[in-house]
Amino acid sequence: MVKKVAKKPTEKSARKDNKRKAPKPALRDLLRIPEADSVDLSSYDSRATPGGPKDKATALAALTRLGEDLAGVQERLYASSTAGDTRRVLLVLQGMDTSGKGGTVKHVIGHLNPAGCRIKAFKTPTTEERRHPFLWRVRQALPGLGEIGIFDRSHYEDVLIARVRELVPRRDLGRRYGQINRFEQGLADDGVTIVKVFLHISYEEQRARLLARLDNPDKHWKFSPSDIEDRALWPAYQEAYELALHRCSTAAAPWYLVPADRKWYRNWAISTLLLEHLKALAPSYPTAGFDVGQAREELLAMP
Amino acid sequence: MVKKVAKKPTEKSARKDNKRKAPKPALRDLLRIPEADSVDLSSYDSRATPGGPKDKATALAALTRLGEDLAGVQERLYASSTAGDTRRVLLVLQGMDTSGKGGTVKHVIGHLNPAGCRIKAFKTPTTEERRHPFLWRVRQALPGLGEIGIFDRSHYEDVLIARVRELVPRRDLGRRYGQINRFEQGLADDGVTIVKVFLHISYEEQRARLLARLDNPDKHWKFSPSDIEDRALWPAYQEAYELALHRCSTAAAPWYLVPADRKWYRNWAISTLLLEHLKALAPSYPTAGFDVGQAREELLAMP
Repeated sequence: MVKKVAKKPTEKSARKDNKRKAPKPALRDLLRIPEADSVDLSSYDSRATPGGPKDKATALAALTRLGEDLAGVQERLYASSTAGDTRRVLLVLQGMDTSGKGGTVKHVIGHLNPAGCRIKAFKTPTTEERRHPFLWRVRQALPGLGEIGIFDRSHYEDVLIARVRELVPRRDLGRRYGQINRFEQGLADDGVTIVKVFLHISYEEQRARLLARLDNPDKHWKFSPSDIEDRALWPAYQEAYELALHRCSTAAAPWYLVPADRKWYRNWAISTLLLEHLKALAPSYPTAGFDVGQAREELLAMP
Repeated sequence: MVKKVAKKPTEKSARKDNKRKAPKPALRDLLRIPEADSVDLSSYDSRATPGGPKDKATALAALTRLGEDLAGVQERLYASSTAGDTRRVLLVLQGMDTSGKGGTVKHVIGHLNPAGCRIKAFKTPTTEERRHPFLWRVRQALPGLGEIGIFDRSHYEDVLIARVRELVPRRDLGRRYGQINRFEQGLADDGVTIVKVFLHISYEEQRARLLARLDNPDKHWKFSPSDIEDRALWPAYQEAYELALHRCSTAAAPWYLVPADRKWYRNWAISTLLLEHLKALAPSYPTAGFDVGQAREELLAMP
């Protein structure tokens, strides 16, 4: 069950709704993990479709339109950056193996102009990365001005796998939540809109997806025996996620829980979340910093 | 007029062709700038459609199919890299302002999985970049293993605008062609397939496209008065391109000239060139490095 946050309808939306239906809350309000609440993942249905289409065909049609809208507002964000706008967007994708992080990049980010995307998949830290504080490699991968950054895994691995596999002393681990919150607050202060998405799948759905990978030789490269080791630690991972969602869903950078057993809902929901955040920035094409009429005359006067 | 290089039909293709039509040469053979030939750009028709569809509707339909094929072989290249394959592809886009470098990224690269693309738009060098040898910033932006790199402008700017605007002494400039060839040979030795595309537009087409930008306030951000300064230097730029195409079309990294007045042909041609090069690599999904049957049993045995 996804908790619903009531949204006060505006006068305008109320008028419109009188003719149509009850006011529709923004998806970000439906999916946001409330600040300071403790989180019990078992209370969220991973097959739910809160606020979204109820079937695949409708979702796919909506996704195409969402993709066009996303590409449009992305171009305005980028254009605006050429005139001094320093705002950026960072989408953080986290979730268990097979939860659809890669699929989201392909099917959601695939609608954007790739020139304006900065995508980073965080793997097991290299020897060099391990020599640095855990946020070091994350800082190298941030989106530039006007760009949309996408993290496939992120600094949250440093309180997830690091916790479950006990890769750092518990005291250091405890400090990391605060470090992450301060880091993200700093990004927000710098004009980065952070959209953190937890892809929530069920234990059974993961089994089905891992089996599907094993059944298709073209997907064997996506499978690793360590996936089974991690799956055996499922309860510990869920607990680590609950802690991360609880301690790091802040006003500056809230977490969104996206039920992800249905891929079509997942793609629709993340597209919608991203679009809501981009629209809230309301980027606009900059006005010309030159004399348009004169430029036209010069162009026409050239031989 | 685009020069055609005759291709000897293989037995297999000849048999197939007996049933159908004359052997169709690969586009790479049609568009390649022959090694060591001097280049006269005025002899190439920028509205031509060599080897391609003759109308927009056919081209757009073909582009969709090409996009799917590209995404498929891209995934195999990436998958193969996870098993030790170190090959990569680098698409270099060069051309005058408005020739369609950005449009190519949007409409051709937009079909690929963005997770496997590394796109770099080279702008005016920063103060830090200027302190280094000209190839320094290019080396930072190369694609990783299994990735497809895309350069929107490149190290060729250092023999194009650098020549036309006399940014470096003529002697240093003369050395750069050899430096570029050695650099690219080194990349090829390292497993990088380099696809260098010159987008050939006419002087009149550029005027039309610049005017279109001026006529649409949403496109003013793409225009700069320096575009007119560069346009006034058109003959010098064409000469600089002729030299670069002549001196740097090598066996390791040939140049391809793509007539680009028609955007639909440009997108079709670059997609096709990219696909031909990717198919020539024939990447394949790696076989499992683990016991698939055992993994399946373990998965099913889990509670």
